[in-house]
Amino acid sequence: MASKEKTAKLSIQLKTPKGTRDWMGTDMILRDRIFESIVSVFKRHGGTSLDTPVFERTEILAGKYGEDSKLIYELADQGGELCALRYDLTVPFARWLAMNSTVQHIKRYQLAKVYRRDQPAVAKGRMREFYQCDFDIAGIYDPMIPDAEIVRIIVEVFEALGLREDITIKINHRKILDGLFTVAGVPADKIRSISSAVDKLDKMPWDQVKAEMEEKGLEPAVANKIGEYVKLEGGRELVDTLRSDPELSANADIKKGLDDLELLFSYLDALEVADKVSFTLSLARGLDYYTSLIFEVVTPLSAPAEGSQGKTKRKGGNDEDLSNDPSVGVGSIAAGGRYDDLVNMFSPKRQIPCVGVSFGVDRIFTIMKQRLEKEQREQGKASLRSSEVDVFIMAFGGKTFNGFLLERMSIASELWKANIKAEFAAKVKPKLPQQFKAAEAGGVPIALILGEDELAAGKIRLKVLGLPDGHPDKEGSLIARTDLVSEVKKLLASA
Amino acid sequence: MASKEKTAKLSIQLKTPKGTRDWMGTDMILRDRIFESIVSVFKRHGGTSLDTPVFERTEILAGKYGEDSKLIYELADQGGELCALRYDLTVPFARWLAMNSTVQHIKRYQLAKVYRRDQPAVAKGRMREFYQCDFDIAGIYDPMIPDAEIVRIIVEVFEALGLREDITIKINHRKILDGLFTVAGVPADKIRSISSAVDKLDKMPWDQVKAEMEEKGLEPAVANKIGEYVKLEGGRELVDTLRSDPELSANADIKKGLDDLELLFSYLDALEVADKVSFTLSLARGLDYYTSLIFEVVTPLSAPAEGSQGKTKRKGGNDEDLSNDPSVGVGSIAAGGRYDDLVNMFSPKRQIPCVGVSFGVDRIFTIMKQRLEKEQREQGKASLRSSEVDVFIMAFGGKTFNGFLLERMSIASELWKANIKAEFAAKVKPKLPQQFKAAEAGGVPIALILGEDELAAGKIRLKVLGLPDGHPDKEGSLIARTDLVSEVKKLLASA
Repeated sequence: MASKEKTAKLSIQLKTPKGTRDWMGTDMILRDRIFESIVSVFKRHGGTSLDTPVFERTEILAGKYGEDSKLIYELADQGGELCALRYDLTVPFARWLAMNSTVQHIKRYQLAKVYRRDQPAVAKGRMREFYQCDFDIAGIYDPMIPDAEIVRIIVEVFEALGLREDITIKINHRKILDGLFTVAGVPADKIRSISSAVDKLDKMPWDQVKAEMEEKGLEPAVANKIGEYVKLEGGRELVDTLRSDPELSANADIKKGLDDLELLFSYLDALEVADKVSFTLSLARGLDYYTSLIFEVVTPLSAPAEGSQGKTKRKGGNDEDLSNDPSVGVGSIAAGGRYDDLVNMFSPKRQIPCVGVSFGVDRIFTIMKQRLEKEQREQGKASLRSSEVDVFIMAFGGKTFNGFLLERMSIASELWKANIKAEFAAKVKPKLPQQFKAAEAGGVPIALILGEDELAAGKIRLKVLGLPDGHPDKEGSLIARTDLVSEVKKLLASA
Repeated sequence: MASKEKTAKLSIQLKTPKGTRDWMGTDMILRDRIFESIVSVFKRHGGTSLDTPVFERTEILAGKYGEDSKLIYELADQGGELCALRYDLTVPFARWLAMNSTVQHIKRYQLAKVYRRDQPAVAKGRMREFYQCDFDIAGIYDPMIPDAEIVRIIVEVFEALGLREDITIKINHRKILDGLFTVAGVPADKIRSISSAVDKLDKMPWDQVKAEMEEKGLEPAVANKIGEYVKLEGGRELVDTLRSDPELSANADIKKGLDDLELLFSYLDALEVADKVSFTLSLARGLDYYTSLIFEVVTPLSAPAEGSQGKTKRKGGNDEDLSNDPSVGVGSIAAGGRYDDLVNMFSPKRQIPCVGVSFGVDRIFTIMKQRLEKEQREQGKASLRSSEVDVFIMAFGGKTFNGFLLERMSIASELWKANIKAEFAAKVKPKLPQQFKAAEAGGVPIALILGEDELAAGKIRLKVLGLPDGHPDKEGSLIARTDLVSEVKKLLASA
């Protein structure tokens, strides 16, 4: 090979693009497990999967993300259409709904990667390529029924992940919030900007939020009145409390919002998830397109640990924001709401109301990984294996040892036919310690060991791996070659 | 809304980018089912999943695809790195192997979309965004053992898809082919170009291939000698036939290749898949990086039907090529081989031999879909449902009917808790015919029907849907409200 060519090769930087990563090994297995849990809940609720192209025509994405549009990844203009990588899964879903006008009702889910050309902070999990995991119900239904099912789905997902006890679903209603601002004396043209100040209450103290409101031109008395309202938080009884305030209940928006929430709470009772919901008046949510119910799932588990790397004090800024996903706030691991007008932006003749939730799978992954590593430390063994192989077929022998390769292949063939995950060393005459090492590296629980004398007698040794010294089954047992599959199945079933 | 804004909206073309499509409904379910079957086989063999970013640094892809490099989708230069969408899964895998130098052995699989800015032919399934599904074994092992396992994996995949009887795995060996050309009198510098002429034998008659060889400067006598060899096809006995030819067995390359194949056939016997393999001397494969074993899975099912749209006569050109995937030839649905030097292109110090297979999932999807549609025509019912819901909870009543919404929710809640897929109409007072229609549209097999009198007596009607008139179970049966979950489970288990 010419040395010039070699030099050219050496100059390649071997890495993934900025803000992206490879997924492999136990991380990949954990991520797959999380996805499977989530999809299983989605299917239980009649969800059907939609897969859209990774890039869209640029005009489809244009005008949907405000000033964040600068984060959109564009494809090069190589002649033909201008395209860009998808920024989220909601706009492609709305585009699909607008294109498929015969679809009147749908529960769709999508787990897919989205792309944001943001400044990555890999250590904090802020990536340029990351997964979103969305479930949305589109169609005209009676009020709050799909909304209640979305709340139920959220609870089922975290139950499936073993996190039900660790989460709270904060809910609020855009109409109630806007009504409160009006009653407090906020001018109509300032409502959105005041709302976005309130949205920061989960990461800044009230004094700073109030200062921001006053900078935005609000009278201190008005700000104080807002402050009284947005500190309210509770369950269904808070609906009654607000309703009993004559000033609030006189506002038509607030009345409509309270009617919605009362209905929602009655449905959440029937669906047995009302206990996970907190009606939180400070919840505002950033995105403009929400029209009524909004919600956010929070957990203390996703806050950075005290003294952890890169930690800043829990006030001001958004240094603690572990994700670049603006649909998810600080400390929150899922979020969503009702957006009744988005499809209409693509197809003026089509009005199809939607409500949906997006799970922050990156953060959920981080929480689950920490939990597994903790279990691992406490139990002293790996709780996730890098492959799912159940049986390692080994061989050993003396001077005349031929390796039993064909016999190992034939046994593997039998096991595979019985849908048992099995491997053997791809060597003609493998050494026994190396075979044990390979099985151990994969965390394989069972070994089948072929020896000359045993095989001659029609026997094979079946051994559970990883047993402590002195365990009565440490040496395994001899089984008949003909009972192989049934004996392995019995052992796997008992594990 | 301003009319100017409305006009702007109307000008958006509602479509996916050229050569891409959305996947939804039964197509999506069938595709998922195919993926699940394939992954289940991969896991049974100890495969671990690798996920790489959808785009790579452009220099990683550069110089890997020859003149097809013009088909690479580049991202726009928005400042920072130059990147491009991945073109296949092999180069990202080789990049990953080069980056992770501690990995000495791995069985990795990846199911992911790849991108080629080719002229799409959507009706023929030639897309710009399409799936590849790869399994590769990397590492230094004893000869032909991983190669044999790959063949076994191919057979298991098609067995899982119900296509075992419909496929043949053509195999050949680069060294044998090159040796044959040498023996026939092909000059060394013409071997690759003559090899690529031979590769066209599955889509052109011998006369045309011979003419191409002569155009490339081969003597007619040499071409004729090649013609004699490449028409040979057979099983293990062909290895012996070639070995018994003194002229051939005197060639060191051919001898090495025949030794490999003899070993391979002995392993394929032990793995019980030798019957699916045909040693085919005309198989050449396009890609340059294969170093020894090459193979291609063919089936008569993937040839276009006589008189089908866009059909051209089975000679010349590549109009019948249903895929733009050059790793897959005409009529073939999976292909691969051994490539021992690719990782070395990224990391001159690292030599890690690989063998792998890529499944043409687009074609497999087309075959499976045709098969399902045939079953559907023959059996007169849809064989794929658009959702997986098992139970539809309905209600009906007379004048005082309140819709039993909370009761339906509560029942749904019970079923979901028991991991039963269930839905109900999101209406306060749904009409019974509409509920039946919704259940029918989703192909839901079971209805739970709540009536006033029955509920008052603690009973619910359980009904199997879709039974013909006059069937004894057509009206269903009344079950106790308290036995709901167990009765539904019993019915589902018996179905």
